[in-house]
Amino acid sequence: QTVPDSLNNNQPDQNSAQRILSGNISSGVTVGGYGEIIYNQPEGGNGELDVRRLVLLFGYKFNDKVQFVTEVEFEHVSEVYVEQAFLQYSLNDNVNLRGGLMLVPMGIINEYHEPTTFNGVERPSMDKSIVPTTWREIGVGVAGKVDDASLRYQAYIFNGFTSVNGSKFLGGKDGLRNGRQKGIESNVDTPNFSAKLDYYGLPGLRLGLSGYVGRSQAEDDVEELDGSSVGISMIGLDARYTFKRFAARGQFVHSSLTDTEAYNELHYDLVASPTQGLGSTMQGWYVEAAYNLLPLTKEQQLYAFARYEAYDTNTSVSGDLLVNDVFNRSDWTVGLSYKLAPGAVLKADYQFKDDATSASLANQLNLGIGVWF
Amino acid sequence: QTVPDSLNNNQPDQNSAQRILSGNISSGVTVGGYGEIIYNQPEGGNGELDVRRLVLLFGYKFNDKVQFVTEVEFEHVSEVYVEQAFLQYSLNDNVNLRGGLMLVPMGIINEYHEPTTFNGVERPSMDKSIVPTTWREIGVGVAGKVDDASLRYQAYIFNGFTSVNGSKFLGGKDGLRNGRQKGIESNVDTPNFSAKLDYYGLPGLRLGLSGYVGRSQAEDDVEELDGSSVGISMIGLDARYTFKRFAARGQFVHSSLTDTEAYNELHYDLVASPTQGLGSTMQGWYVEAAYNLLPLTKEQQLYAFARYEAYDTNTSVSGDLLVNDVFNRSDWTVGLSYKLAPGAVLKADYQFKDDATSASLANQLNLGIGVWF
Amino acid sequence: QTVPDSLNNNQPDQNSAQRILSGNISSGVTVGGYGEIIYNQPEGGNGELDVRRLVLLFGYKFNDKVQFVTEVEFEHVSEVYVEQAFLQYSLNDNVNLRGGLMLVPMGIINEYHEPTTFNGVERPSMDKSIVPTTWREIGVGVAGKVDDASLRYQAYIFNGFTSVNGSKFLGGKDGLRNGRQKGIESNVDTPNFSAKLDYYGLPGLRLGLSGYVGRSQAEDDVEELDGSSVGISMIGLDARYTFKRFAARGQFVHSSLTDTEAYNELHYDLVASPTQGLGSTMQGWYVEAAYNLLPLTKEQQLYAFARYEAYDTNTSVSGDLLVNDVFNRSDWTVGLSYKLAPGAVLKADYQFKDDATSASLANQLNLGIGVWF
Repeated sequence: QTVPDSLNNNQPDQNSAQRILSGNISSGVTVGGYGEIIYNQPEGGNGELDVRRLVLLFGYKFNDKVQFVTEVEFEHVSEVYVEQAFLQYSLNDNVNLRGGLMLVPMGIINEYHEPTTFNGVERPSMDKSIVPTTWREIGVGVAGKVDDASLRYQAYIFNGFTSVNGSKFLGGKDGLRNGRQKGIESNVDTPNFSAKLDYYGLPGLRLGLSGYVGRSQAEDDVEELDGSSVGISMIGLDARYTFKRFAARGQFVHSSLTDTEAYNELHYDLVASPTQGLGSTMQGWYVEAAYNLLPLTKEQQLYAFARYEAYDTNTSVSGDLLVNDVFNRSDWTVGLSYKLAPGAVLKADYQFKDDATSASLANQLNLGIGVWF
Repeated sequence: QTVPDSLNNNQPDQNSAQRILSGNISSGVTVGGYGEIIYNQPEGGNGELDVRRLVLLFGYKFNDKVQFVTEVEFEHVSEVYVEQAFLQYSLNDNVNLRGGLMLVPMGIINEYHEPTTFNGVERPSMDKSIVPTTWREIGVGVAGKVDDASLRYQAYIFNGFTSVNGSKFLGGKDGLRNGRQKGIESNVDTPNFSAKLDYYGLPGLRLGLSGYVGRSQAEDDVEELDGSSVGISMIGLDARYTFKRFAARGQFVHSSLTDTEAYNELHYDLVASPTQGLGSTMQGWYVEAAYNLLPLTKEQQLYAFARYEAYDTNTSVSGDLLVNDVFNRSDWTVGLSYKLAPGAVLKADYQFKDDATSASLANQLNLGIGVWF
Repeated sequence: QTVPDSLNNNQPDQNSAQRILSGNISSGVTVGGYGEIIYNQPEGGNGELDVRRLVLLFGYKFNDKVQFVTEVEFEHVSEVYVEQAFLQYSLNDNVNLRGGLMLVPMGIINEYHEPTTFNGVERPSMDKSIVPTTWREIGVGVAGKVDDASLRYQAYIFNGFTSVNGSKFLGGKDGLRNGRQKGIESNVDTPNFSAKLDYYGLPGLRLGLSGYVGRSQAEDDVEELDGSSVGISMIGLDARYTFKRFAARGQFVHSSLTDTEAYNELHYDLVASPTQGLGSTMQGWYVEAAYNLLPLTKEQQLYAFARYEAYDTNTSVSGDLLVNDVFNRSDWTVGLSYKLAPGAVLKADYQFKDDATSASLANQLNLGIGVWF
């Protein structure tokens, strides 16, 4: 006999939390996890080996209606974060109320980042700079399915980004990434809204439409100042498709920000550094195709894949901020994903990196070991 | 089939460790946990959202006599503490020897702080300032029951508070809280003693009498100086009562300290700040009544409750220290606890805060999600 | 029914990871752990109480060939490390490929450090200063058994020590200990090699031969400088023997380093401190005998033991570095190990400490509680 684990009900297009929530145990505890050990070797320099993340999952089913899910993440061996922790109350099969620390549904990777679910040692680059993966905040909302319409829906009120995170600001270099509060004694000023629709009505295809709108959270002592917060609207489109040994996916995310001129005046010195500041729009997209080199009759899979992505945190700027071409990036990633089992993968890829300047960026070899159970 | 978890043997008046220890599995591992996600909204300011704590429990039964229990706590998302870790050897059903990192039995909350066991989003305030919850140290002792007398007993030798914790001192603002060593490479100078008796002979009623006596631990290089340590005597009385849809509880704790005059001379500048220092007595009490608005036939419960508490870390002072009325506090808390299941609760309350000065304190709305499994 | 745990298949001479890997579950998750709570009381000073470590083990068997093992360690209550995290792919019963964060097989304790597997509250001192236990790095390799020859073998390519770890250097005081990268965003310059052979052909006896060879890893910006890295060759011999109520073990480890003269010139000020620097050879050994005072018919065991060890991080030095006799140490440890159950132990011992100077070192009483499940 074995312990329930998140793999036990291995339905495609589910992430760890969804697997636990849809598990067929009647009640009790579920234990699972995922992890990535990564080797980055840039051209012409030393490499880096890192236990990038190890995540432990614990789920508990109190009864048919009430469930709790949590993920505890260990990053770079010695940092710890509770990454998810939410309670779900199911009104019925199609309407589930949720509250707690949850993933913001935007694009593919922020919700589905277990290493066996995506190609490439590293997550797509735009899912760091445009979508600040792993983006999670405390909120409440509703999620469920409308099977007749082949729709999965989610709608949440989340706590927003903080305008200033200690000495770190929102900006072109890291996008909105520094503003994530992660549920850590987080500042609450004004609610933010997030929603996603997924359509799964065509065989092998899954289409997603994500939206997010709100404002960054200003501290009490500055919230009356111009530029103490910015408005944020984000829209995402994503598609995943599989047909026999072929698989493809793509994603487009566009962010539109207001009040960035005042924000930059308040937080940056544009006279000294006219290209450092927060852009008014940010945008990124990628397309990826993969082909399984092994016959479908084998449990093991060996995908060869190629991904092209383009992303820019300075798609447009306002006020005195000048466009910084360093932030206008494009990457080619080509490589292999060798799945020893559905939950265990060896990865290898090479990344060709470019930006809108004439400088050449160091390309990089990546190797990785990934597990999900 | 399901994994053993701490809820499996759901006996009232047990905390997580006791549930694991009294579990009916013959041997093997038990996994459980509890957690709280909390929203604090003070009047007239920004709110705060926090994954206050997530605790994972692991128990192991080596055989009928030998068991191990540990709790790993993740506070504010990214801090980690091993909160309990002790080995129990049962001489017989009524006499259990214990050693390791354990909770000091003082009042109700320090031992029973799983969020579904108490009303109110926040623990009672006096269980922060008078009883420095969660108060745990490394020790050895004995625990058990005398069923004929309806008594549960505990007696321990614990390591004591440290006199000085880095740059933090014992004092009026935080009581003895800063002195907790928590089993972290802790300084051992002189033993402390702790005991508790619980009487459960009357239906629905549970009465507790707690005692603690010892000295704070001084570092080697100062232990000969006057005021390098203080003597501590603490006594607690508590009662919990349930009758049909009605529940009530109350607690009184009194601390008496010696050598505070010398302690304050050594560690504080009373000339510059005559109201900052360690008081000679500290005291607090609360009473709480609750009523389940739902019929008893329902598994769900909806308690409306009110709690009044008064607590003061400067009940008396000695030497040149002057009483600081800011530390003489009283709180009213009124609210609701909605138990979706025995192990899952939604909480809402409002706190009216007052102290002995003429200043008015900001009242506060609290919302919380709590789980225990 | 119980959850699979690492104790379930209790075969001697296995550590936690090996137990999980050789578990007889067909697939699924395994949960285990070990921990130590330790009291150190040096002569003439304050003592220290510490939850030295609590380790949680999670194993997952994807199928008959693919398994994952991880250990998460909580040290001193509030520090966290992922200590092991590796994927194993079994070509057959005797050849297993491994990759990830793994223990370097050198001597006994680095691989077998669960508290019920060794006598003494503290691990042998030479397993801190000569073998930098717990020594783990990211690597790939092969492990297995050749039953016909009664041999267990392991061979790995590991990432090496870092030459400089922030402001810490390799040196006489801590040996190579500060150079451990532990898989934390670790610097990769040149591969290191590690292998071990264990012979178990004679009843009750287990002999080990360990080898390690490589160079420390220099940062990109200094790697062309003389002394930016040192060469390391380490050899270890170990033996474990049991016969009825008698048990004995011993270990010898010798390290030979190259380029220490240049390393010391680059990183130390030998003019000001001529005895601080990295020695050219380091060496240590110990022998230990133990006798079970309880009859073999009892499940409980009470071992009385004595251990003598001698170790020196300055066995030889080169260049201007002078031998520091403080680093030439010997310890006698005598004590008791009382195993309440195969996985639970109480320990008590006394350590007589000496070095090659005429100064006398404070002896020390140690008490400990240990568990492994």
